[in-house]
Amino acid sequence: MSGPRTISVLGATGSIGASTLDLVRRNRDAWDVVALTANCQAKELAALAREFGAAVAVVADESCLGDLREALAGSGIEAAGGAGALVEAASRGADVTVAAIVGCAGLAPTMAAIEQGRTVALANKEALVSAGEVMTAAVARSGATLLPVDSEHNAIFQCLVGNAIEDVRWITLTASGGPFRDWSLERLHGATPAEAVKHPNWSMGAKISVDSATMMNKGLEFIEAFHLFPVGVERLRIIVHPQSIVHSMVEYRDGSTLAQLGPSDMRVPIASALAWPRRMDTPCAPLDLAAIGELTFRAPDEVRFPATRLAREAAVAGGAAAAVLNAANEVAVAAFLDRQIAFTRIVQCAEDVLSRGLPPAPASLDEVVAIDREARIRARETMEPVR
Amino acid sequence: MSGPRTISVLGATGSIGASTLDLVRRNRDAWDVVALTANCQAKELAALAREFGAAVAVVADESCLGDLREALAGSGIEAAGGAGALVEAASRGADVTVAAIVGCAGLAPTMAAIEQGRTVALANKEALVSAGEVMTAAVARSGATLLPVDSEHNAIFQCLVGNAIEDVRWITLTASGGPFRDWSLERLHGATPAEAVKHPNWSMGAKISVDSATMMNKGLEFIEAFHLFPVGVERLRIIVHPQSIVHSMVEYRDGSTLAQLGPSDMRVPIASALAWPRRMDTPCAPLDLAAIGELTFRAPDEVRFPATRLAREAAVAGGAAAAVLNAANEVAVAAFLDRQIAFTRIVQCAEDVLSRGLPPAPASLDEVVAIDREARIRARETMEPVR
Repeated sequence: MSGPRTISVLGATGSIGASTLDLVRRNRDAWDVVALTANCQAKELAALAREFGAAVAVVADESCLGDLREALAGSGIEAAGGAGALVEAASRGADVTVAAIVGCAGLAPTMAAIEQGRTVALANKEALVSAGEVMTAAVARSGATLLPVDSEHNAIFQCLVGNAIEDVRWITLTASGGPFRDWSLERLHGATPAEAVKHPNWSMGAKISVDSATMMNKGLEFIEAFHLFPVGVERLRIIVHPQSIVHSMVEYRDGSTLAQLGPSDMRVPIASALAWPRRMDTPCAPLDLAAIGELTFRAPDEVRFPATRLAREAAVAGGAAAAVLNAANEVAVAAFLDRQIAFTRIVQCAEDVLSRGLPPAPASLDEVVAIDREARIRARETMEPVR
Repeated sequence: MSGPRTISVLGATGSIGASTLDLVRRNRDAWDVVALTANCQAKELAALAREFGAAVAVVADESCLGDLREALAGSGIEAAGGAGALVEAASRGADVTVAAIVGCAGLAPTMAAIEQGRTVALANKEALVSAGEVMTAAVARSGATLLPVDSEHNAIFQCLVGNAIEDVRWITLTASGGPFRDWSLERLHGATPAEAVKHPNWSMGAKISVDSATMMNKGLEFIEAFHLFPVGVERLRIIVHPQSIVHSMVEYRDGSTLAQLGPSDMRVPIASALAWPRRMDTPCAPLDLAAIGELTFRAPDEVRFPATRLAREAAVAGGAAAAVLNAANEVAVAAFLDRQIAFTRIVQCAEDVLSRGLPPAPASLDEVVAIDREARIRARETMEPVR
């Protein structure tokens, strides 16, 4: 490669941000850092901005801007705060923007990065789950290159390289099946938050661990895949693969299936996105299939785990459905973690909210955010005790 | 695609030829058939030439030309016979030439096809095993596109599409391990021809079945891979995968491994080569990993199966080594099938011949053929009873 490329990391202090900067650190000369952002971790962000010589550091929470300014004093690095500053930083343009802000807060800066028409390595789930049609329209308009960072979607992306989307017979997302994959429906009713947050293969936060346990995580990934890879819902499917070594697969019309395999280390898909269309070194250990011994596969059980069915229905429905599903699920997961509802009620709650009718399809991010807010209110209503 | 493409099938009556023509038959309008060749199956060849409206049909064995002429009478299809006619037919040039003549007889016509600088779908093992350096030099000179049809090499080719060879960390050939993969060394000594020809996953001829049982088949494929994919012998390895679902893998420097999976049906890799860089339909059933359930992997055991070690050493030695190995192995396999030597003597015989010193590296196909002939004589000598 000729000369350093520029990079911005939106959500630099989170786990994707840390993995990204770990890779940049290992290949310091290849990158010039433009913008780093965080929610409110001013000291941590300032340290990263100093280490990487960022042009600008932004905290989303404006109340933390004072701390950030103090921590950056004398560095010559610009400090800014608030939602507008986040969008401004994302709009500065970098060869690659890693969009890794969690939740709806990430929508506007992700959109701003997309609108620059360059490369966006996407780790914000809401961008495609809640705002799928709005985002993909922006990608088409701006000519941006969207590289998925989620291990499953990055795997699919790698399996599609050099092939035509028209030649795809199946895209198969693999799912670990979560910690409850072998539990009976009865046992699932009584599952506790402590049991749900023990994920077998990846170390994750509580919310996403519960999503893995309900398989809603896979449902949301199904919706993301639906937007990223235009093969139609009928060519997308899920298979349970407990070892999480095969990250996903693409089958072509000639009967060839390409699969991407690798360690459960986010640096692999991030590196794939950062270096694309080339590859870069990562410190991840080579895959030793002989030591792993066996890879197993089974069909998902949508009776015990209805989340993937619900997500597929939301993808088919389009419009506001996926945003409602995502918001309702978040509220229900929080209620479960707070021991207000049973494990099996989480997905039922989301289904209840969806079944009450949908608002019109969102035409803008503001409308997506409004739908999200309204769906959260409705979800809380479904969980109130009947009097 | 715009308009039909032209195709020649060298070795039309063999199993690769039949699979190729099966695919052409299913998509008749996409192809114009130029040349079809066979060894001596005049009637069968004539029927295919008539069905596909070939321009020319050639029998390698000139004594069969009379039969061929008779069978083609009134068809307007040109008939020819003999080694020179084979080369002439291969030199006519087609968009794609499927080089599927078995053994050294395939070398000259394969070379002639390569020299046209178009696409050659290569199924003749000797081209790369015995004449690797001569062939790859011809490919470089002519600018031909060489597409491997062997399921393993085609898998690797598919996993490399869109990637740079410099980014490869490992190329891993999968091996079923053959029918004796769980046998002890003692038991292997007494293995019979009948036991050796029962291959678990593919239906094959006796010679190649024995090669699968000794794992020499994988050794020869290792040498082919060495010539096809210039990553160096130290980045090539073999893993035992009894189910033969994963046909091979490529690991990149970022830790991503791409694997190609599919049914044990040669129409998949042939279709991949015929349609490349697009894909074409095949009648092969979709991959149902949930029904398959598990894929297992283990390291190869080069104590019980030294063939892969011997092949790796031959690849490193270069020059005439692989041609000698291949020829000696063929003689030894024939002797085993004729119950003259024990199963474990097959690979020892090849090693004996190799250890007696090598002729100079071949600079032409004639020299390759001479080396092959001489190695066969030496191999027979090693098997003569000590008096």
